[in-house]
Amino acid sequence: MSTEGPRWDAQVAVVGTGLVGTSIALAAVAAGARVLLYDVDPDRLAFAVDRAAGVPAPGLAALAAADLTVVAVPPERVGAAAVELLNAGTSVVTHVASVQHRPQGDVEASGADLARFCGGHPIAGRERSGPAHADPGLFRDRAWVVCPTTTTAAGTVAVVEALVAACGARPVRMGAAEHDALLARLSHAPQLVASALSASLVGLTGELAALAGSGMRDTTRIADSEPDLWAQIIESNREPVAAALQGAIAPLIGLADLLRADAPAADVDLAVRRLMEAGRAGRALLPGKHGRAPVQAAEVHVVVPDRPGALADLLRTIADRGVNLEDLRVEHAPGQPSGVAELVVAPASQQALVSALRAHGWSAVAGDVTAL
Amino acid sequence: MSTEGPRWDAQVAVVGTGLVGTSIALAAVAAGARVLLYDVDPDRLAFAVDRAAGVPAPGLAALAAADLTVVAVPPERVGAAAVELLNAGTSVVTHVASVQHRPQGDVEASGADLARFCGGHPIAGRERSGPAHADPGLFRDRAWVVCPTTTTAAGTVAVVEALVAACGARPVRMGAAEHDALLARLSHAPQLVASALSASLVGLTGELAALAGSGMRDTTRIADSEPDLWAQIIESNREPVAAALQGAIAPLIGLADLLRADAPAADVDLAVRRLMEAGRAGRALLPGKHGRAPVQAAEVHVVVPDRPGALADLLRTIADRGVNLEDLRVEHAPGQPSGVAELVVAPASQQALVSALRAHGWSAVAGDVTAL
Repeated sequence: MSTEGPRWDAQVAVVGTGLVGTSIALAAVAAGARVLLYDVDPDRLAFAVDRAAGVPAPGLAALAAADLTVVAVPPERVGAAAVELLNAGTSVVTHVASVQHRPQGDVEASGADLARFCGGHPIAGRERSGPAHADPGLFRDRAWVVCPTTTTAAGTVAVVEALVAACGARPVRMGAAEHDALLARLSHAPQLVASALSASLVGLTGELAALAGSGMRDTTRIADSEPDLWAQIIESNREPVAAALQGAIAPLIGLADLLRADAPAADVDLAVRRLMEAGRAGRALLPGKHGRAPVQAAEVHVVVPDRPGALADLLRTIADRGVNLEDLRVEHAPGQPSGVAELVVAPASQQALVSALRAHGWSAVAGDVTAL
Repeated sequence: MSTEGPRWDAQVAVVGTGLVGTSIALAAVAAGARVLLYDVDPDRLAFAVDRAAGVPAPGLAALAAADLTVVAVPPERVGAAAVELLNAGTSVVTHVASVQHRPQGDVEASGADLARFCGGHPIAGRERSGPAHADPGLFRDRAWVVCPTTTTAAGTVAVVEALVAACGARPVRMGAAEHDALLARLSHAPQLVASALSASLVGLTGELAALAGSGMRDTTRIADSEPDLWAQIIESNREPVAAALQGAIAPLIGLADLLRADAPAADVDLAVRRLMEAGRAGRALLPGKHGRAPVQAAEVHVVVPDRPGALADLLRTIADRGVNLEDLRVEHAPGQPSGVAELVVAPASQQALVSALRAHGWSAVAGDVTAL
């Protein structure tokens, strides 16, 4: 990608050429590193090589020459692979799994050299997989958690963070247990909650389910994720996921009880308000665009006819006004021949944009001003 | 809006000029009806009148002349308002609340004339409110549940369905209890689940919460909804919401128990897979674009620089190829100076579009092919 900046004069080995492994390899190549690739699946390896992600390693033993070996295999196999590599004399071993404590424990229990081991987790999850989607920019400006053990050598951490830098990511150091507890709250429990909510629709006819609005669709979007990968992640992070699930559903259990008890309406009202106010407070913690603190942003809603080019025309009209979109979502509700574009702009631009769009014949209304 | 089609020669009264009431009034005016408006808030009433949504009624008594009176007040006041209007001699009374059984029960219990009462619920919920966002097209091609009681007169239902038609919506008849149980699953429980999940973040620092990805943001989007309105909806639909919550969280309680028990890894793995497969089955029930059965759709991901006009340029390139976008989402991840546009196109267009975009200098990759 970037050919500016200093070249990274390193030899990097990548074990596992799926989406994450191949993306890392592509970024390392772009940064100037020589990259050795290894995969148990020869077709997948060939695909990554064809994408110029590196050269194939003749065998695992050849990886010992690398300055850094990245283990990018399915979560349940990370620990064993790291142990095997460390024992084979590989200089520094990192990995990229969504769980950290279990593989670190595997390495500790094996007696392998922990000084050369440092787990990592690039936060760039998407609901897709496979080397076809690999992208050297996948981690650019993303956080990449780096989890040194208490006996990891400083030089080991430095090499891992050089890889993070080569991928354009931002290293965030924390302990393995802290990482796992955090990701259980930010990612693992939300995945299960979305799946359970979506699963609760099973049994409805399609005709009745068709009455669901966009809220249900957004809330369950990640329920389309890959069961195989997630089963491994959840099983590898049992207690933190159980605690995060419990934290998320405890208020719902309490509310369901209250709804079924003969509680006064005022008590139910208060309980719902408290839950929703806490929900809004939680939302306000989520990052805004560019990792800034949340800022006020204003919505403008525009009806977009369902024909090629309509959205381009709309965005050209907006660009011609010099208005920068903070965010954009286009929604097609069931049965609608036209969509609604939800534009998010700076509050100061909202009214002028609505007026300008109307002057150009668009059906536009001002929407809410909210924290972005 | 539409000046085609037959004019609707009716006198319609709308009580409550918020988002839904004003939108209905605007649609009725556009269809040819004479519309009387009433609101306890004179400023809000004036705003609706200024938007040409109708003429102000001199008082509630004046509404007796209308062929149909639409009660569009907050859910907890719907029953009382309907009773008052029926007893004042209003010919036909409907409402637009997200709950049906409670207001219907209020009317039954009052002894008012049920033959002239028929509840309704246009399914067009958004996380916004107020007459500023009113739109005569808000209900176009949406479902509108119509809930006659066993003693509602056929003529009453016909007038209500004429309003539904005037708004461009599609009437879906069902009983009040059936409606409430369905909406508890499709809307009320999802709202509370999203709020509870989001509330579980409270206590994290912004720095740690910044590690959340787009999955968490989508899953909790509706947690920004209005607590006041939702407290009324939930309190008015107690048992169905409790049942829907229980249905959604029961598998999570079971899974948390299993994770904490000394269960074999294979058992945990199976439980997670089963939950996620059920989640995918639930997703497949949700409506696709235009209310069609779900179709296969292919994603194309494109990096979009953060400057005015970049997205317009991209969409122009796509439109010039004659490719119609099924859906579009633009995502700005934390700290990213550029966004990623997720385009959804027909699978047959995917590879050609990726090639064309690359030829035009865009960084594009093929994404997953999924059910839309």
